[in-house]
Amino acid sequence: MNDLFADLPPSATADEQFVELLARPGIRIERIVSTGHRSPPGFWYEQVSAEWVLLVQGEALLRFEDQPQALLLKAGSYVDIAPRRRHRVDWTSPGRTTIWLAVHYGTATDSD
Amino acid sequence: MNDLFADLPPSATADEQFVELLARPGIRIERIVSTGHRSPPGFWYEQVSAEWVLLVQGEALLRFEDQPQALLLKAGSYVDIAPRRRHRVDWTSPGRTTIWLAVHYGTATDSD
Repeated sequence: MNDLFADLPPSATADEQFVELLARPGIRIERIVSTGHRSPPGFWYEQVSAEWVLLVQGEALLRFEDQPQALLLKAGSYVDIAPRRRHRVDWTSPGRTTIWLAVHYGTATDSD
Repeated sequence: MNDLFADLPPSATADEQFVELLARPGIRIERIVSTGHRSPPGFWYEQVSAEWVLLVQGEALLRFEDQPQALLLKAGSYVDIAPRRRHRVDWTSPGRTTIWLAVHYGTATDSD
């Protein structure tokens, strides 16, 4: 048994933190911790595997390139992101610890 | 975008509630809501697929047949349950809504 809230980074940490919780053929589960982080300007994630993401704590703005309006995610919000669908994090609430649970699945989970 | 906390059953609901959040080849994600539910006496889950489970809210006692001590799960506790590993829920906190996120994965996710 493990704890999703264990070893959270101090809120002033410069980088987002990625911790792998499970890695099996075809699936990879990770915890992502952001504190006011956003994707760099002009940067888009474009992953070869699909990703199901749940916001566990905090708030975030998730933007898809093919959608004019960013999504405001709160605790409990979840989104399924298709492979190759370009997306970025426009904003996470500053001064709060935002925790994501990301489930990468499909055939190519090791390579993104 | 969807909400994990949407459409929670009233706390007096007789049965546990299972809602499928994602179903893809090799993976199935579901929300399980318990309010004081426990597995029937002598009942053991024995699933053909693996299951990664996160307790999102509430408290539960999870027992494995091969382990003398039950695990007390709280919000944030997660456990990876191997295929065929017999387990049961001894207790969930009565009067509270306990929410599980269950990720079934492996080759046989449709049949358990």
